[in-house]
Amino acid sequence: MARVIPRDKVFFAFSPELKAVDKVDQGEEVILQTHDCFEGQIQSTSDLVDQLDWAHVNPATGPLYVQGAMPGDILCIDLLDVQVGEQSSMVTVPGEGALGDIITQMETAILRREGNQVIFKDKIRFQARPMIGVIGVAPAEDEVPNGTPGPHGGNMDCTLITTGNKVYFTVGVEGAMFGAGDMHAAMGDGEIVVCGAETPGTLRFKAQVVDLKGLPTPFVETPHLVAAIYSAPTLDEAASGATHRMAQFLTDIVKIPLNDAGMLMSLVGELKFCQIVDPLKTVRFEFPKKVLAEYGFQMP
Amino acid sequence: MARVIPRDKVFFAFSPELKAVDKVDQGEEVILQTHDCFEGQIQSTSDLVDQLDWAHVNPATGPLYVQGAMPGDILCIDLLDVQVGEQSSMVTVPGEGALGDIITQMETAILRREGNQVIFKDKIRFQARPMIGVIGVAPAEDEVPNGTPGPHGGNMDCTLITTGNKVYFTVGVEGAMFGAGDMHAAMGDGEIVVCGAETPGTLRFKAQVVDLKGLPTPFVETPHLVAAIYSAPTLDEAASGATHRMAQFLTDIVKIPLNDAGMLMSLVGELKFCQIVDPLKTVRFEFPKKVLAEYGFQMP
Repeated sequence: MARVIPRDKVFFAFSPELKAVDKVDQGEEVILQTHDCFEGQIQSTSDLVDQLDWAHVNPATGPLYVQGAMPGDILCIDLLDVQVGEQSSMVTVPGEGALGDIITQMETAILRREGNQVIFKDKIRFQARPMIGVIGVAPAEDEVPNGTPGPHGGNMDCTLITTGNKVYFTVGVEGAMFGAGDMHAAMGDGEIVVCGAETPGTLRFKAQVVDLKGLPTPFVETPHLVAAIYSAPTLDEAASGATHRMAQFLTDIVKIPLNDAGMLMSLVGELKFCQIVDPLKTVRFEFPKKVLAEYGFQMP
Repeated sequence: MARVIPRDKVFFAFSPELKAVDKVDQGEEVILQTHDCFEGQIQSTSDLVDQLDWAHVNPATGPLYVQGAMPGDILCIDLLDVQVGEQSSMVTVPGEGALGDIITQMETAILRREGNQVIFKDKIRFQARPMIGVIGVAPAEDEVPNGTPGPHGGNMDCTLITTGNKVYFTVGVEGAMFGAGDMHAAMGDGEIVVCGAETPGTLRFKAQVVDLKGLPTPFVETPHLVAAIYSAPTLDEAASGATHRMAQFLTDIVKIPLNDAGMLMSLVGELKFCQIVDPLKTVRFEFPKKVLAEYGFQMP
């Protein structure tokens, strides 16, 4: 039986002062139950956002002390399975998000999931695309609220963070203090109204320190690509940061000559939005693993 | 036999003063031959970018007077076939592009195409993804160099602009004065080093005025999605512009209530980069046509 971390074990900021709720071994399968981003406060269309207790928004389950994870280590979180709940909620918030200047009415929508389909207002049916919004480790210094992304991870809202993929973090404090929450049954790149289909869920994962010193983190690996993630106050800074992080990975770690790396990034790399609505914006740069293999490099 | 516009009929800026090189009927199939963005000046690895005559960069073939196209009309360009050449070139330019701060060596690479594969330095082989970088109509006022994108189109470098898709423009002057050029055999979203696989090519298309008054242009339609394109000095402005244009389309034209439009844009819409390296940055917002159909709307 895998160790289960229940969803009432939550924290609201990634901080070097966090106390672990449990200790896990490297390579051990662990199940993390997560609340939705409202900690279950929104259950029906009459639960409006102005009634929220904001002290209970963006909970992450954890933190977990990973045995043997030391500051500076690269920690790989292998996302074995990301399962989302049967009910999701969304809200519109006047003044917030990419359309906050024109949205004037608060509204709550409840979405049902039927198998791998999500249903919006009993009208629009689309494919579920489960993902984890908040995931990370404690930073070495300073506390970061869970609603904010950063070098430690946090609220990156990256649609690649789902079943079958891996996320890499640089450990900031002994034991890493890993946690995750804020799952979405579906979300498009951009997260225009500051939420996707917000839902509770269950993550089954393994944590492992890997030999990838110097990896620009947060970093994601899927079966077909790698991605460098960067968050900054402006999209121009975030785009430049993600691009430079990928160039650093390709030149320093994969050992591709800089000009080749740049030209290949222009040819087969893809700059993508994660979200444009949090305190910092998040961008990722995706690059195909097939090209890494041609240069004799494989992820561990 | 379709009318053929040869690639020596070029212009270098979209302007209300342009004189047409030919007149075409609405619905008529036309073939436009295009130069690469260097007007063929780069043929081997020894042709470096500092030897370029910059007066001959970013040629577009045309302009064409479209019979009956009047200012304010929405002109649909149906991209029946986009074919790229067998040789492409790429350059690195110190100081230019998203990695211009770290790229110090000028270099030219020549890429071959074999069928639907593109080959970089006889080492990396990947799928060709032909696309048109520069495409547009004359603006009603002011001249815009072909290297710059804008409301009239221009150098948008949008990877959706390819065979089987449609691009919509608002006509600025009588006859529209349509032109295109700057094809790429492949380019990733972002266009990191300011070029893709730059190649001459051939576009077969039809131009038609359509009844879509108020459409936010430039606008793209593929078999599965629609996209609003917006260019601005910063990525934050470009992202906001593309997002608001799509919201305007969904609410004003498709008649989706604003809150539903915003939530669906957050759920199944995708904000994407076109390019981050031209004088203005270009972003698009993609939205699935399947959802439009659920609200009873079809593109003409």
